[in-house]
Amino acid sequence: MADQVYSYEKLSQFALATFTKIGCSADHATLATKVLLSADLRGIDSHGIARLSGYVRLWEAKRVNATPNIRVVHESPSTAVVDGDGGLGLVVAPYAMKIAMEKARVAGTGWVAVKNSNHFGIAGYHAMMALDHDMIGMAMTNASPLVAPTFSVERLLGTNPIAVAIPADKQPAFVADFATTTAANGKLEILQRKNQDAPIGWIQKKNGDASINANELKDGGALIPLGSDREHGSHKGFCLGAWVDIFSAVLSGANYGPWVPPFVAFLSPPADPVGEGIGHFFGAMRIDAFRPAHEFKTHMDNWINRFRNAETIASQEKVIIPGDPEREMNAIRLKEGIPLNPKVVEDLQLLGEKLGVHW
Amino acid sequence: MADQVYSYEKLSQFALATFTKIGCSADHATLATKVLLSADLRGIDSHGIARLSGYVRLWEAKRVNATPNIRVVHESPSTAVVDGDGGLGLVVAPYAMKIAMEKARVAGTGWVAVKNSNHFGIAGYHAMMALDHDMIGMAMTNASPLVAPTFSVERLLGTNPIAVAIPADKQPAFVADFATTTAANGKLEILQRKNQDAPIGWIQKKNGDASINANELKDGGALIPLGSDREHGSHKGFCLGAWVDIFSAVLSGANYGPWVPPFVAFLSPPADPVGEGIGHFFGAMRIDAFRPAHEFKTHMDNWINRFRNAETIASQEKVIIPGDPEREMNAIRLKEGIPLNPKVVEDLQLLGEKLGVHW
Repeated sequence: MADQVYSYEKLSQFALATFTKIGCSADHATLATKVLLSADLRGIDSHGIARLSGYVRLWEAKRVNATPNIRVVHESPSTAVVDGDGGLGLVVAPYAMKIAMEKARVAGTGWVAVKNSNHFGIAGYHAMMALDHDMIGMAMTNASPLVAPTFSVERLLGTNPIAVAIPADKQPAFVADFATTTAANGKLEILQRKNQDAPIGWIQKKNGDASINANELKDGGALIPLGSDREHGSHKGFCLGAWVDIFSAVLSGANYGPWVPPFVAFLSPPADPVGEGIGHFFGAMRIDAFRPAHEFKTHMDNWINRFRNAETIASQEKVIIPGDPEREMNAIRLKEGIPLNPKVVEDLQLLGEKLGVHW
Repeated sequence: MADQVYSYEKLSQFALATFTKIGCSADHATLATKVLLSADLRGIDSHGIARLSGYVRLWEAKRVNATPNIRVVHESPSTAVVDGDGGLGLVVAPYAMKIAMEKARVAGTGWVAVKNSNHFGIAGYHAMMALDHDMIGMAMTNASPLVAPTFSVERLLGTNPIAVAIPADKQPAFVADFATTTAANGKLEILQRKNQDAPIGWIQKKNGDASINANELKDGGALIPLGSDREHGSHKGFCLGAWVDIFSAVLSGANYGPWVPPFVAFLSPPADPVGEGIGHFFGAMRIDAFRPAHEFKTHMDNWINRFRNAETIASQEKVIIPGDPEREMNAIRLKEGIPLNPKVVEDLQLLGEKLGVHW
């Protein structure tokens, strides 16, 4: 069945009504909706409204607190630790990123580690909050363990994404936002829906053998760190995922590694937690704490122009500046609407019926 | 011909005498020697004493200043920009990292961008300076352009390494230090010396085709970002290399991308520089700006234990904690000596004769 297309407004209204229905304040529901839908607009369909019913199931299981008391529990001039009080990461993360930016205003940079949170949507949204303030923004999070370190058969890390948003002047901003695995889990979900195989190097079987089965994770398999195998640097992808895990959770007091609670409500969190909830890490750096912002942004224009216009391999596409595809998708989907897989639509209809929210 | 083994003391004395001979102060020569030799000790042979004659040739070409006036040219409570005055990166980098740590002492974190510097040895050395102070250390640098962005045939980025050093309590520290390419250039040099081919995914030909020729860079080929190809995430490796380039050079006012001056003296720097020298970026974060250091380090022990003892793939090695192999090598080489390739020995002998320094 073909995708069905819905307007941004229609989907926003539904998400807003849903978040309101489970008890979020008007401000929180509005913010959660904006963050959630930014994924659909930017083409990262796995992290958008398709996850809404998952958030609600976590709330039903009392693993998401709709009325959190989000607060700073430790700080220094350029740092803070935020306790998310079990709230939606969609709400906790922008709160924490704002604090990072306030710290940066005074101290030049601000770095905020978050504990006791939940899935925060796309990392890029939070990093990009810095752009309008002539700041560089960074965001990381740990996540449910699905990734095996190089040489291991155990799922010990999440896909642990990193986002870095860097403003330019006339050029659009540089926005990198990527899972530290060879392929994000959302890429596997697309293959699953299409009944297609995955390339060698994305996933491994339960026993560690290479696999092309996009459903391998259901049989105890694991995602593979960026690099695919040791010969091609998967130990570096493991370093990246580990770094994100430690900054997000060991610094903040959240759960790390295999102790990170699963995103799906039908799996219980580990019985022996080492911290609270999942963890995030945010950074904001004021450009003019290093050099005049205009000077920096002019050089960023030059950087972007040079790379975008690099000579390419015949028959291949242009060099892609990080953030370009998502920004272009955002413009298209705002205008033409957001395509949803029929299974996602059905799931949202059921959600609406369950909560008494008009679809 | 087999490698020849030399003691750490012997190689240190030679490096110290060489740096002194070209005009470095006693303090600078001692520091440069320590940083340079830390690469040999840790097994990163491409970045150690094998580079000494290269540094001297850059000094002969007046591209390294042996008596730099290294200074802070811009700062905020948690940031600084350092002008390396064309000095050896081996000396400029520890200076900058110290400032990052001083900032962290007061502001919680410190972030220092450096311009007008040169090759700084191994990134890990600088990041590890933080460990004894209950801080997390970070170090990045850009480098001579040898890497083609995904879809391009042009060499626009260096191997741009990232190092992150994180203290633990009873366990040794977590020390990640890796080039943001599939393979570091040093790995190619080893294959070249052994007349062996490289795996597919490390390098590409001048026209962008895959290559297994370890000498391909001499024919205009390029290294490939971590990920190897688009299907396996090379665009993420490109994001990482770009991030390092921008933080190191666009923030500081150094040369970036294809404008980075080449490390080898026989190639001239670009005639149209966009900044000064090469750039680095350093970070220091005081652990107790987030949570009590002992608490953090105890959890790091738990993290490291859990990952080190993860179930492995039959017949494969254990999971490697970042920093373990280098630390073990360091202990062995301090005791048993440092093996040098005969070509490196010959190069050092010639250097000694040229400068009148006893080999």
